[in-house]
Amino acid sequence: MNFETVALDDKNSALVIVDQTRLPGEVVTLRLTRQQEILDAIRTLKVRGAPAIGVAAAIGLYLAAKSICADSFDAFYREFRAAKEALAATRPTAVNLFWALERMEKVVLDSRELPVLEIKRRLYSEAVAIREEDIKMCRAIGEHGLKLLHDGDGILTHCNAGRLATVQYGTALAPIYLGHEKGYRFRVFADETRPLLQGARLTAFELALSGVDTTVICDNMAARGMQNGWVQAVLVGADRIAANGDVCNKIGTSALAILAQHYGIPFYVCAPTSTIDLNAATGADIPIEQRPDSEVTEMWFEQRMALEGVKVYNPAFDITDNALVTGIITEYGVARQPYGESLKAICEQKSAQE
Amino acid sequence: MNFETVALDDKNSALVIVDQTRLPGEVVTLRLTRQQEILDAIRTLKVRGAPAIGVAAAIGLYLAAKSICADSFDAFYREFRAAKEALAATRPTAVNLFWALERMEKVVLDSRELPVLEIKRRLYSEAVAIREEDIKMCRAIGEHGLKLLHDGDGILTHCNAGRLATVQYGTALAPIYLGHEKGYRFRVFADETRPLLQGARLTAFELALSGVDTTVICDNMAARGMQNGWVQAVLVGADRIAANGDVCNKIGTSALAILAQHYGIPFYVCAPTSTIDLNAATGADIPIEQRPDSEVTEMWFEQRMALEGVKVYNPAFDITDNALVTGIITEYGVARQPYGESLKAICEQKSAQE
Repeated sequence: MNFETVALDDKNSALVIVDQTRLPGEVVTLRLTRQQEILDAIRTLKVRGAPAIGVAAAIGLYLAAKSICADSFDAFYREFRAAKEALAATRPTAVNLFWALERMEKVVLDSRELPVLEIKRRLYSEAVAIREEDIKMCRAIGEHGLKLLHDGDGILTHCNAGRLATVQYGTALAPIYLGHEKGYRFRVFADETRPLLQGARLTAFELALSGVDTTVICDNMAARGMQNGWVQAVLVGADRIAANGDVCNKIGTSALAILAQHYGIPFYVCAPTSTIDLNAATGADIPIEQRPDSEVTEMWFEQRMALEGVKVYNPAFDITDNALVTGIITEYGVARQPYGESLKAICEQKSAQE
Repeated sequence: MNFETVALDDKNSALVIVDQTRLPGEVVTLRLTRQQEILDAIRTLKVRGAPAIGVAAAIGLYLAAKSICADSFDAFYREFRAAKEALAATRPTAVNLFWALERMEKVVLDSRELPVLEIKRRLYSEAVAIREEDIKMCRAIGEHGLKLLHDGDGILTHCNAGRLATVQYGTALAPIYLGHEKGYRFRVFADETRPLLQGARLTAFELALSGVDTTVICDNMAARGMQNGWVQAVLVGADRIAANGDVCNKIGTSALAILAQHYGIPFYVCAPTSTIDLNAATGADIPIEQRPDSEVTEMWFEQRMALEGVKVYNPAFDITDNALVTGIITEYGVARQPYGESLKAICEQKSAQE
């Protein structure tokens, strides 16, 4: 694929993304320079996927910082904070957004004695590092995940946790891409993922372009595929993982975990450690974004699909109980029950390496 | 609602239906007189829902018989059989279609000594009787089902098993309509039901027009509603029920049954005894209709929703294991485990009353 999911342009002046709301019909690359454009792009899902949102926010915050005209640290920091708050307010659920913004702020606070120009230079380096690390994290997730799969496996995935949700490889799709490179013949089933159809539009698109055998199904067909014996593993991403292993991911994920348990199929969550939020004790502590009714009743459709005035419930995410999760595949290895201990150990391992 | 789901017009010359592919945007009544129009209407889901298909087929076969120009029984029966076979070939899964056609054929075979004109008259009476019985059956299902519900209950339903799937009342929606008449305040959650969106387009339409509190959700949101404690019962219809209680119904039904079991919510199937097929020992004996890929990737949408050439799996129905079914609500009462015995007893009760 000859486009970037999320990058800084070579003049360090624009956030470059492919507009995901127009895929697969059109591949439109956007060069976003103004802060308002970047906020809108995240809010309207032109760039989406927890890791990609984190990278976009880091680059967005660097671009905002770069344009601040201030000589004193205090004046600079005031404007920097405002830009950070605006980015933090775009989406409530994915924790990678806040994680990336915190990393950027830490650079500023650690450099308060330095000239503003030097702070800006360090913010540039941090944003570039966050992006480069994302590639390495996804590749490591792919390697750990691939050990759990077998040639010929049928793999069910939901939403898009692929290259289009990260810088490269993806999270849930990383083991599939790495296996495909080694000649494994996977058969992937992509839930279309209503209401925004990220599975049909994005996952099927990127997998098919890479030559992976992919079949699109409606979300309500997953159980039938499992019943048919076509699914040997479920791989999904995550927007936030609580300290106890409860997983917040795209609406529909928890149902897949329940179905997988019913049919005795392993259910794996693939996510970098930046997705783990030890401050959220359980899934109940994670805010669930509610999105507009029109996504369900109008968007994508030629005509309204429900009578005007009918009520709609449209949560963007749900919580999968940790008891249903076979393993959480991170860049540091696979966490298993009890997650309270295994996730903490992985986060400590990460801190030790930093 | 001032339209008929399925009726014979007052000149006994046309099948009158509301075109369900154009709801809820437009309420278009069709008067179908030619046999080919009737076959197409069933095949393209202008009339759908197992009981309504049975009634449409009975009326369609009467209209075909009426137009046969033959004086001898043998010549008449040859053409009648051809018309019956054509109707039987429209949809493979719903057994009510075959049940209604068999009833019509039995009238012919029982009347072989009579003049052709008299046979046609008896076919008219049988088609009208099948339609009238459908109303009574649905009302009885509603009464038996209502005893299992409580004022204030949240009820999840899938696809459309309402008035638009029958002549009146519906099957799964019959208890809701009857309770609503008595002042029960139900909160209904209607799965939109991809790919053809019968839940969003039809169920939400007919319930909202009747003043029932209705919320549309995407199919993948049902588990979240259950997790929130909003669902006290799941009510669905059926296209065919095997002798052991395995239920064939709209794709997505089996997933709801698994989710309901996980959350300890009763899962009821509402269907007339004409849906029970004692010749199918288990769900594995029921043919599952596969429908075109374009329903998933193109239909209803402004643009293609998946890359051209991506594979699609689009089964119209699935099989719910009888172990997941809390009860099967028929016009003769509620069958419970073990279904092998309870369904047989209900079918015998029916035969005894005929």
